[in-house]
Amino acid sequence: MKKTRYTCGLDAAIDVVGGKWKVLILWALYEPGTLRFGQLRREVPGVSERILAVQLRDLEKAGLVRREMYHQVPPKVEYSLTELGKSLVAALVPLGEWGDAHMTTIEAIPRD
Amino acid sequence: MKKTRYTCGLDAAIDVVGGKWKVLILWALYEPGTLRFGQLRREVPGVSERILAVQLRDLEKAGLVRREMYHQVPPKVEYSLTELGKSLVAALVPLGEWGDAHMTTIEAIPRD
Repeated sequence: MKKTRYTCGLDAAIDVVGGKWKVLILWALYEPGTLRFGQLRREVPGVSERILAVQLRDLEKAGLVRREMYHQVPPKVEYSLTELGKSLVAALVPLGEWGDAHMTTIEAIPRD
Repeated sequence: MKKTRYTCGLDAAIDVVGGKWKVLILWALYEPGTLRFGQLRREVPGVSERILAVQLRDLEKAGLVRREMYHQVPPKVEYSLTELGKSLVAALVPLGEWGDAHMTTIEAIPRD
């Protein structure tokens, strides 16, 4: 287990969120509350099964997502946000609104 | 010039911010208003000259940072946030506060 030092809270937060998938997964779980793997995959367009599984494991380790397994046949696995995960999504709302408001500008940014 | 399609505003915003350096650079420019390259480098701990130069060029292309060159000897170059850049930093404040509030938890996350 490696400890990381951060410059500031934003640095730390960005490290936890780490790329677009984690953010989209957290976002997708916010409203419905609980989703099964397949449902979650449909809510995050373009994500592969492998990437979703890896990102979910990371989010679980980070204490942001709860994974609950029901021992039935076939086994049912459900994902939901922890309190920490909910507070993170709430903190991401203004950033999402900024992206919505400036979508056209952002899409027009020249990329290499 | 390639156009990108986004799932939602948050997806778009995260794509613009892209990793920890851009966020830290925007953050560093917020309070002082205007900084020269060397000053900015000191405000973003751990950033190399090359990385800072590349990230600044990206931020300028995205319309978030303004670069002003004064033709004097030696030439003076100053960086500041545009209105768009300022609005992005404002939207990042809650995320930074979340990171501050949960710093200990974040530092203790097991990493591979």
